[in-house]
Amino acid sequence: MTEFFHVITADQFAELLIRFPRLTSEKIPLDASLSRTLSEDVVAFEDLPEQARSTVDGYAVRAEDTFGASDSNPALLEIAEPVSMGTIPEYNLNPGQAAPIPTGGFLPRGADAVVMVEYTNRAEAGSVEITRPVTLRTNVLDKGEDARSGESLLLSGMQLRFQDVGFLAAAGFSEVSVYRKPRVAILSSGDEVVPVEYKPRPGQIRDANGHALAALVREAGAEPILFDIVPDDAAMLQQALKTALSQSDVTAISGGSSVGTRDLMRGAVSGLADTEILAHGIAIRPGKPTLLANRNGKAIFGLPGHPVSALIVAQVFLVPLLRYLQGAALEKGPLGRRIDATLTASIHSTIGLEEYVRIGIEEKSDGTYEAHPVYGKSGMLSTMVKANGILVIPMTIEGFSKGDTVQAVRW
Amino acid sequence: MTEFFHVITADQFAELLIRFPRLTSEKIPLDASLSRTLSEDVVAFEDLPEQARSTVDGYAVRAEDTFGASDSNPALLEIAEPVSMGTIPEYNLNPGQAAPIPTGGFLPRGADAVVMVEYTNRAEAGSVEITRPVTLRTNVLDKGEDARSGESLLLSGMQLRFQDVGFLAAAGFSEVSVYRKPRVAILSSGDEVVPVEYKPRPGQIRDANGHALAALVREAGAEPILFDIVPDDAAMLQQALKTALSQSDVTAISGGSSVGTRDLMRGAVSGLADTEILAHGIAIRPGKPTLLANRNGKAIFGLPGHPVSALIVAQVFLVPLLRYLQGAALEKGPLGRRIDATLTASIHSTIGLEEYVRIGIEEKSDGTYEAHPVYGKSGMLSTMVKANGILVIPMTIEGFSKGDTVQAVRW
Repeated sequence: MTEFFHVITADQFAELLIRFPRLTSEKIPLDASLSRTLSEDVVAFEDLPEQARSTVDGYAVRAEDTFGASDSNPALLEIAEPVSMGTIPEYNLNPGQAAPIPTGGFLPRGADAVVMVEYTNRAEAGSVEITRPVTLRTNVLDKGEDARSGESLLLSGMQLRFQDVGFLAAAGFSEVSVYRKPRVAILSSGDEVVPVEYKPRPGQIRDANGHALAALVREAGAEPILFDIVPDDAAMLQQALKTALSQSDVTAISGGSSVGTRDLMRGAVSGLADTEILAHGIAIRPGKPTLLANRNGKAIFGLPGHPVSALIVAQVFLVPLLRYLQGAALEKGPLGRRIDATLTASIHSTIGLEEYVRIGIEEKSDGTYEAHPVYGKSGMLSTMVKANGILVIPMTIEGFSKGDTVQAVRW
Repeated sequence: MTEFFHVITADQFAELLIRFPRLTSEKIPLDASLSRTLSEDVVAFEDLPEQARSTVDGYAVRAEDTFGASDSNPALLEIAEPVSMGTIPEYNLNPGQAAPIPTGGFLPRGADAVVMVEYTNRAEAGSVEITRPVTLRTNVLDKGEDARSGESLLLSGMQLRFQDVGFLAAAGFSEVSVYRKPRVAILSSGDEVVPVEYKPRPGQIRDANGHALAALVREAGAEPILFDIVPDDAAMLQQALKTALSQSDVTAISGGSSVGTRDLMRGAVSGLADTEILAHGIAIRPGKPTLLANRNGKAIFGLPGHPVSALIVAQVFLVPLLRYLQGAALEKGPLGRRIDATLTASIHSTIGLEEYVRIGIEEKSDGTYEAHPVYGKSGMLSTMVKANGILVIPMTIEGFSKGDTVQAVRW
């Protein structure tokens, strides 16, 4: 019952992840592109707008015709043919003329500014008074001002937001090239584990890991594939892993928190052809018995069986890998919103282990934050639910003191 | 060309949203529940764990048998039948005995603590040396300690995170009751607007609003339904609205930034049966000509045609409504991560208008943030792409000065 594995640090483990190649790209419809990551630059193929447009309701004018205009001394201009939406005016705006123009309307030739309707009066039939002067290009969006043909609009590696989707539509891209979503096979192992739909017999427990990991994987932009629960049997474990690997880009199997089943998992993985075990054991708490293997560029994560440990390890290491495979930079986890908070109680930690502490983050009335450790035994899934954040204690320190400012990651 | 509508404040507009009833609930499979909002409390129907379990690999003991144990003076205990995963031991642990137990294993009757394997030595056949004492319940997760039968595990109104999904699985819930996702009909109107797949003829523009709004609606947890582009024709607008309303919970139509089309939109909406126009015109910039109507509890948003205005209004008012309909509290938008940042340039604003300014937020090496206004004409969609945040300037102030600390919302 000794531990055979050689433990590496969390940083060393995180660095191993860069060995896995990014996924290939695919073309997808624009409406499916939210939160996906561009796999190539998007280059404008035309000017936006194609011609100068008005940004207000008003009158298109020659700016110089308005110089000196005021309420007491308005410029009187002849009303030209109104501009209508959806067409480029064919005529030329002559000196002394003003053309009614709606927001978004294209300027007639000769016009070089727009006076807002608020600064005009319809004086007599066929003419309009301008009560404020405008300078060149006022209230005009120039040809190519929003996007210039040949310009890179959005860069490879960028995760698309709602406004990017709108910009791509405006620029005429109905499809975009993005990194594929990783398909992540999720397996739970253990003789005692039963599907959530089953009534456990005495001594059995339901599969929490599979469902929580599937949710986490989905949150990371990847596609989970939930497999059947695998019993603690070397041959069956290996067969399940083979099937999972053939259908996925990444395989995450949880189980084997006890020394016996840990050996079983390691045996099953090392027995796979073309598979290198990169790590077995990380100097972290919880999550020490984690395993990482590489089979032809596909990652195999052997996660602890304990739900709390499995979920924390997945958040710290699996999620950054999934983001990286989709084109993001490789960052050490846990990813998420970082909040500076004052600790309300001291937390002790062990030198030589990077520890992950579940915490409750609370915003105070003055806009600052407090963080309190969520107490409860390490195996309690309810502590993950009560917590709304996680705090990393580096391996080089003995913990944090009450009153320290710490940086927590919000769940 | 005057403005007929009566303008209300942003706060008054936001308060109108509470008039729309929350959606009904539905039962969905656990694996589809991430980010959905519970419509009822989830109450445990059994204890978790069902019996006391070990949280470590080691030996189940009677704590008092280990009192005083040390490296130099270990307690020598007789090894009882090992506990295996997935079964509850049938035997009684007698005084002087220790049962090998894996992490997660159930304690035999009589055992009240577990000694970690690290603090034991296999001395001679059939016995084990314990080198550290344990107190009652050490390394034991007690019956019902994670969840007690009858306890509310998760409360109505809570948006489910990955760990909540895991907890629900552990507690035996393969389905959960959540608020329905709002179906949001999205219409773009305008004679000049063409689908993104089309090559616009001179004077035409592509439909940016429809696609960006669909992405924003999806990000808000709702289900967008994109309709065909509607020309500037009162009868066709009204028919399109009727169809959209029959298929959706909320209808968002963009278009009508110019005074003429604005009147058209108002006419189409007010001509619908059982429809009350709640507001037409908000004292905001951009987005002033926004319209809100209520048809039998279904919201109709008339958004500006300008993409920048449409998207900002949707972010500030439509997204909070969609979150509210799904069970969240009604909050004034823009929702999102709030960041305190130092302004790098002064921003002027108009008293009496709530203004939304696109900004770039940058993290400095010392962990603080700077915010700079993103320059560019209001109609430029590229400014929305260059910005990574939005700053609200209240209607009561004339702007912010360079050096002011402001609270920006991250995009």
